[in-house]
Amino acid sequence: MSEEMFVPEWTKTPPQPGSYRSITKIGRPDQIKVPSNRYFALLKKELELDDAYFAEKCDGNQPVGPVPPSNLDNSVLQELTGIVGSENVRTDDYSRVKYSYGKLAEETSPLKRGVLHEITGAAVHPRDKEDVKKIVAFCNSKKIPIYVYGGGSGTTKALLPERGGITLVLNTHMNKVLEVNELNSTCRVQAGCMGPDLENALNNAPGKFNTLHRFTEGHFPQSFELSSVGGWVVTSGSGQASTYYGEPVNLVLSVEVVTPRGVINTIDYPSTATGPRVMDMFKGSEGAFGVVVELTIKIFRYMPGNRRYFSFIFPDFAKAIEAAREICQGQFGLPAVLRVSDAEETDHAMQMYPQMASVEWFLKTRGLLPGKRTLCMGTIEGDRDFTALVGKKISRIAKSRGGMSIGARGAKTWEKERYLSFLIGETVTDYNILMETVETPVRWDNLHHIHDYVMAYAHSVPGTMCISHASHFYPYGTNLYFIFGIKGSVEDYIAYRTGLVDAMVKAGGTPSHHHGVGRLMNQWMESFLGKEEMDALRAMKKHFDPNNIMNPGGTLGLDIPDNLKR
Amino acid sequence: MSEEMFVPEWTKTPPQPGSYRSITKIGRPDQIKVPSNRYFALLKKELELDDAYFAEKCDGNQPVGPVPPSNLDNSVLQELTGIVGSENVRTDDYSRVKYSYGKLAEETSPLKRGVLHEITGAAVHPRDKEDVKKIVAFCNSKKIPIYVYGGGSGTTKALLPERGGITLVLNTHMNKVLEVNELNSTCRVQAGCMGPDLENALNNAPGKFNTLHRFTEGHFPQSFELSSVGGWVVTSGSGQASTYYGEPVNLVLSVEVVTPRGVINTIDYPSTATGPRVMDMFKGSEGAFGVVVELTIKIFRYMPGNRRYFSFIFPDFAKAIEAAREICQGQFGLPAVLRVSDAEETDHAMQMYPQMASVEWFLKTRGLLPGKRTLCMGTIEGDRDFTALVGKKISRIAKSRGGMSIGARGAKTWEKERYLSFLIGETVTDYNILMETVETPVRWDNLHHIHDYVMAYAHSVPGTMCISHASHFYPYGTNLYFIFGIKGSVEDYIAYRTGLVDAMVKAGGTPSHHHGVGRLMNQWMESFLGKEEMDALRAMKKHFDPNNIMNPGGTLGLDIPDNLKR
Repeated sequence: MSEEMFVPEWTKTPPQPGSYRSITKIGRPDQIKVPSNRYFALLKKELELDDAYFAEKCDGNQPVGPVPPSNLDNSVLQELTGIVGSENVRTDDYSRVKYSYGKLAEETSPLKRGVLHEITGAAVHPRDKEDVKKIVAFCNSKKIPIYVYGGGSGTTKALLPERGGITLVLNTHMNKVLEVNELNSTCRVQAGCMGPDLENALNNAPGKFNTLHRFTEGHFPQSFELSSVGGWVVTSGSGQASTYYGEPVNLVLSVEVVTPRGVINTIDYPSTATGPRVMDMFKGSEGAFGVVVELTIKIFRYMPGNRRYFSFIFPDFAKAIEAAREICQGQFGLPAVLRVSDAEETDHAMQMYPQMASVEWFLKTRGLLPGKRTLCMGTIEGDRDFTALVGKKISRIAKSRGGMSIGARGAKTWEKERYLSFLIGETVTDYNILMETVETPVRWDNLHHIHDYVMAYAHSVPGTMCISHASHFYPYGTNLYFIFGIKGSVEDYIAYRTGLVDAMVKAGGTPSHHHGVGRLMNQWMESFLGKEEMDALRAMKKHFDPNNIMNPGGTLGLDIPDNLKR
Repeated sequence: MSEEMFVPEWTKTPPQPGSYRSITKIGRPDQIKVPSNRYFALLKKELELDDAYFAEKCDGNQPVGPVPPSNLDNSVLQELTGIVGSENVRTDDYSRVKYSYGKLAEETSPLKRGVLHEITGAAVHPRDKEDVKKIVAFCNSKKIPIYVYGGGSGTTKALLPERGGITLVLNTHMNKVLEVNELNSTCRVQAGCMGPDLENALNNAPGKFNTLHRFTEGHFPQSFELSSVGGWVVTSGSGQASTYYGEPVNLVLSVEVVTPRGVINTIDYPSTATGPRVMDMFKGSEGAFGVVVELTIKIFRYMPGNRRYFSFIFPDFAKAIEAAREICQGQFGLPAVLRVSDAEETDHAMQMYPQMASVEWFLKTRGLLPGKRTLCMGTIEGDRDFTALVGKKISRIAKSRGGMSIGARGAKTWEKERYLSFLIGETVTDYNILMETVETPVRWDNLHHIHDYVMAYAHSVPGTMCISHASHFYPYGTNLYFIFGIKGSVEDYIAYRTGLVDAMVKAGGTPSHHHGVGRLMNQWMESFLGKEEMDALRAMKKHFDPNNIMNPGGTLGLDIPDNLKR
């Protein structure tokens, strides 16, 4: 391959305004990421694509619509208009489509082609939590379904308005940082506040909130730029720096939630022995119990000057995992980011990032060979002496397990690209190449079993690719994140994904470590949790939402028929 | 005061077997703690006691009984005997009394005097979780109340069998460490396992469980020697080293709970995005939803050789709290134990521990004067380099806020006495002197307000004493622990305690940071949590325990009449 190599005509321009692509596009309009030639060659080989495959293309730049009319009564729209104002009740085709979708390839690939699922009757943009209270009370009285759109980054079909009704859009107006409390090291924020807006406010708190220190939220999911604070909590999300900072379910101190039953407003103490904490019921509730409107979250001093980076190549996956376990159990402090790629992902990374090619010869001379070697990298944050200590410890542990340092480069490259690399997945759907992920928590004692079991299934299907890494570490285990790709029909992709999740759960995993359930993983919920836990969730649902108006139609598997359960 | 000083005839002998004292006694029978003469003088002065007050004494060494007969049908006892065997269904007076009480002075002081509250119909000792399943199913079918006794250390009247029925005793047979999983850094344990047994098993895991490392549980409540693992979780307890290790609600990875509705058995992953975590509903549930029978908990490498101690005297409480906040927010790692006494507690400590007298002259020369100076101390655990770093940072911060190091002595004295000092409270009830505690979480921004508000009330009642400390730290706040004393009737004591809790809650605290609710704080629950949260708890109660057989009669305030609510 070189000058004669075939390269598809990747779309490199921003989406047409008003087009389907402008809805399915991930990231800012001008952020386009296409496969490098090396990476494209790899994809072609693994997915068994010939040049002819790329003859057909649909980039979704055609305008949205026309779409079926809204089935909401005019009286309903008038009532909603009375609450939020006419400019905040949108029934145009574009709004109705835009706020009815998340970013799962299963959703976006057909959408690019104008194939529509059920869409919302109206996109309603509440101005504040009082609006939400009125809307929920009204919709409850009329039994009108409510779906909630935070940042729209979900990949679990959680936004699909299965039963019509309305979609509340929280990031239009309810997107503010209300208070930075330096003394308490907390921040009060509206649920629709987007990741970058929160981080920006915290990083610049001295100017904006008159604090002494700068702060950070410590939560950086890959969806950071596309997701909202409320969404992080109700999906049980996790961020790239979770190993040090923890996860949203542990980063939130209190919530205000509007449910059909009434408003829950919890107290912002880190601990209180006053019965089961009702706040906990809303963590992972995915809009099925009510609308989270406001949160008090933990924040941390922001000291980017102290950040350290490390990158090691280990002889194999098992050795890298062994080192990661020792790092997590050593009781000297945890790194912020810690990632261990399996051998296949390591090989992919070497193709994806041309920067890495320069170390290839060096690795080979050290016996660190493709197909076996694995990349482990991360960052360390906090006080300067602390990051120095943790860095020293990590180096010592890595070396004792055969890890070879490749300096800061691997981690810095990753950090630079971390919100961009998954844009490739969006680019290739133009050619009906579907790349997606499934993921599960693992314990140290079943990590390799789950990894190998899922990979055995993955590789049993010809013309597919699957790679994996662990990226959220605890002293007690980690997660496995499988990135897979398949060409052709959405049906083939669904069958492959279903097989992967079946394998993951059968081997001892759960349906999700941090993406959530939505309508994607709902079919596994009852067999995974068992009837007793599902009944407990249903009892909570019935209590908070007796008329089943909150995100009805499959979320969390609460109301799906038995024949859809696996 | 010296040779002529009056000293009461403190009971210094172990309790008579079979006596009330053998039930009310805290700690091992041979662990007796009496006030030092200096401390007695202080108590006399603060509680306004003259020598004549000590003429009347009741040490509870009289034998238990006779007590009213059990109201359980013979057929019920036969059924229970059929399940667990006759040796495990105890209806003798002593058993029925023993397992019906916790350790609150309001319970133990009358009990010493033979004044009985409602007692259980039978103490039932299940042999394993299968027994519990059968018992719960049987009792549910017959609507027989079930109370659960773990270690019996509670101070919230949670064990009082308000509605008779039976009391399940978990620490007789269901007290084993089932598995130490070194790879996962977890331990599977039966709910009735007592603190010292668990810690002993973990410390000696290399010999007992064939592990490479020694381990610790990281949870050391003052009730450590008297409490069970299941109890820690269902009360939302907290331990002395919680600042580093966290609290039981965060230390538990999974639970198996037997409810009237069925058995809940959660999965032991540190994180999973599969809906609200049903396990969380049982944290702080205080036996009202079901019986926790087994748990998987986090464990930590045990490295006592690396432990460091620090003790500082600060010019005043505010300066010590400022230092503690900086320690908790500095992002360099947290100490295990961190305690800050207020000025009054510091003065008490100087009287209670004769060892401290030797530094008195030195403190005075430095201007650190009684009535103002405050003691701050703690320990640091973990990796050797980590404890060195944290120690260095703490020293630097303390000194910058005017703290003067008094070396390791303060912390070492405290550590040696930590499970003993509260035995004094038990000794003085012989003379109807009632010493007890109330406690609340606080944020940094309301700590001093709550402290001063409660203290103002405390000092408004003549002939009482009240001192306070903060002992569970988070970057976001801490707790306040008020130790109070009053002479005379139980009614006076209840009135004083009620006033303290009223003040605590009115100033912005909660009814408890880590003791729990039971039947002691239930009167504050509805006004504190609000109707919406209480309704959510009641919905869970109704789901798991539709016949209200689990710890019925006031627990958590779920079923108390409106006129008992404050």
